[in-house]
Amino acid sequence: MKANYIYELEMKVRDYECDLQGIVNNANYQHYLEHTRHEFLHTRGISFAALHDDGIDAVVARLTMAFKTPLRSGDSFVSKLRVEKTGIKYVFYQDIYRLPDLQCCLKSQVETVCLIDGRLGLCPELDRLLPTQNE
Amino acid sequence: MKANYIYELEMKVRDYECDLQGIVNNANYQHYLEHTRHEFLHTRGISFAALHDDGIDAVVARLTMAFKTPLRSGDSFVSKLRVEKTGIKYVFYQDIYRLPDLQCCLKSQVETVCLIDGRLGLCPELDRLLPTQNE
Amino acid sequence: MKANYIYELEMKVRDYECDLQGIVNNANYQHYLEHTRHEFLHTRGISFAALHDDGIDAVVARLTMAFKTPLRSGDSFVSKLRVEKTGIKYVFYQDIYRLPDLQCCLKSQVETVCLIDGRLGLCPELDRLLPTQNE
Amino acid sequence: MKANYIYELEMKVRDYECDLQGIVNNANYQHYLEHTRHEFLHTRGISFAALHDDGIDAVVARLTMAFKTPLRSGDSFVSKLRVEKTGIKYVFYQDIYRLPDLQCCLKSQVETVCLIDGRLGLCPELDRLLPTQNE
Repeated sequence: MKANYIYELEMKVRDYECDLQGIVNNANYQHYLEHTRHEFLHTRGISFAALHDDGIDAVVARLTMAFKTPLRSGDSFVSKLRVEKTGIKYVFYQDIYRLPDLQCCLKSQVETVCLIDGRLGLCPELDRLLPTQNE
Repeated sequence: MKANYIYELEMKVRDYECDLQGIVNNANYQHYLEHTRHEFLHTRGISFAALHDDGIDAVVARLTMAFKTPLRSGDSFVSKLRVEKTGIKYVFYQDIYRLPDLQCCLKSQVETVCLIDGRLGLCPELDRLLPTQNE
Repeated sequence: MKANYIYELEMKVRDYECDLQGIVNNANYQHYLEHTRHEFLHTRGISFAALHDDGIDAVVARLTMAFKTPLRSGDSFVSKLRVEKTGIKYVFYQDIYRLPDLQCCLKSQVETVCLIDGRLGLCPELDRLLPTQNE
Repeated sequence: MKANYIYELEMKVRDYECDLQGIVNNANYQHYLEHTRHEFLHTRGISFAALHDDGIDAVVARLTMAFKTPLRSGDSFVSKLRVEKTGIKYVFYQDIYRLPDLQCCLKSQVETVCLIDGRLGLCPELDRLLPTQNE
C-alpha cells in the first residue's frame, strides 16, 4: 500500500549537522522530523509554541526510526508525513527521501500525546491535523 | 526479568539542551545514548573515531525510544547499557534514569551494524563489547 | 557607510533551536552564520566538505557577535554576508535581519584562515570568494 | 597579568560535537561556555531556569571568541571563568584548556545583561556572582 502523505517539506543538509563520519548525525533526523511536524502544524493553524503558552504540550511518547541511507554534506531532501489518530495518540508516519533521486533515507513512526497542564489529556484542537476527505 | 546493565555513565542536563517547553529536547536523548555507547567503547579499548579512520563505521540501523519522564534543567541522570549480538547486529539496550530518585526517563533499543569501507560486514573487534562471563 | 552584502540566504527558526527562554539559543546563530558561509561557498563553486577531503580546512580563528534582537519560534530571517581579504585572513561580515520588518538581530565578524594539511597557508582557490568588480 | 579564574569545570568532548573536519564544531564552544556559566551560577545559588521563571533573563549582548587549538574526539578539557561588573554588564572572561597538557583552545569574553520582564535592568541578585575578598 502506498503511503498517503499529506504534507511534505524540502530541506538541505547543513554542514554542522554532519559528524566525524562525514554523514548527518543521527540525532539531527529527529530535528528534521520535529521541524516537519511543527511546520505541518502551522499549515493547520496550530503553533507548537502558542500551544505551550496555553498549557498544552504535545510530546513524543514513542519513536521508531529505521536509518536506510545516510544524508551527506550538500544533499537536499524531502521530509514527508501522514498522521493517524489512535485513542489519545496521534501517530505520525514520517519518511525522508534524498533529492533528486528519491532514495529513502529514513522511515519513522512518531507517537505523540497531549499533556494539558502536565496531565495526559485530549486536545480537540489537534484533530485539525487529521486528513480531510480530500487528502 | 531484571536488565543486566554492564555499563553506566552519569551526566547532567545542560540548559542549552532544553527547549521552549522547558524540558530536554527529544533529540538530545539520542546524543546521550550515543555518548554513552562511545564512552562504553572506550572502556573496551575501542575508539569510534579511530574505527572511522580505519574505514570501519559502526552505524545505527534502527532505533526505538520510549519517552517516560522528561528531564529538566538542573537534573542529573544515569545512562545505563547492555548489549547483545544477533547475527551481524549489535543490539544495545539503553535506559536513562533521573538521579537521585531513579525515575525512568527513557527506554531504548539501538540496533547497530558495521560498514567496512561502506559495505555491511563483520567487525570482530566489536565482539569485545559483549559481556564477559562475570558480567 | 552602507554594508555591501554580496550574498544573502533566507531561513526560518526551527523550534528545536529555541531554549527554555523561548528564544533562539545563542549557539544557533553560529550555526546560521556557518551555514550561510558554506552556501555562499557553493555559489562560488567551492565545497567545504570537498576542501576538507583535499586536505584544506577553512577554520574560524576569531569571531565577534553582537546580539541585538532575539529570534523566536515562527520567525523568518535573512542572513547577509560580505567578505574582505586581509593578509592571510578572509574576514566575513555577517548580519542577520528578521523578516519581514528587517529588524537587526545579529551583527558579526568572522575571521577565517586556511589550514593546509594542518598548517596555516594560502588557499588561492578561496580568492574566488572575493567580490568581483560588479559586486 | 595572570587571569584570576574563580570557577572551573572539567568536561569531555562528545563525539556528536565533532563535525566533518573531525574537530569540535565551533558552535559547541558556545555551548561549553554557557554550561560553564550556568554551573557557576549554581555554585552561587542562582538557577538560570528559575531566574527565567521569575521574569529575569540573563542574556548575552556581545561575545568574542578566539579559537586557538581545536578539541578532538576523546579530548578532555577544563573551562575556566572569571567575571567583572561594568555598569549594567557582567563581563565573563572564559577560557578553555585541553587536558592534561593545558594547551589553550579558546579565549573568550562574554558580555551579559539582564532583561527584567523584557527590559534592560539591574538584577542585584547577580552581584553574588562577583568575586569575594578571598577570590
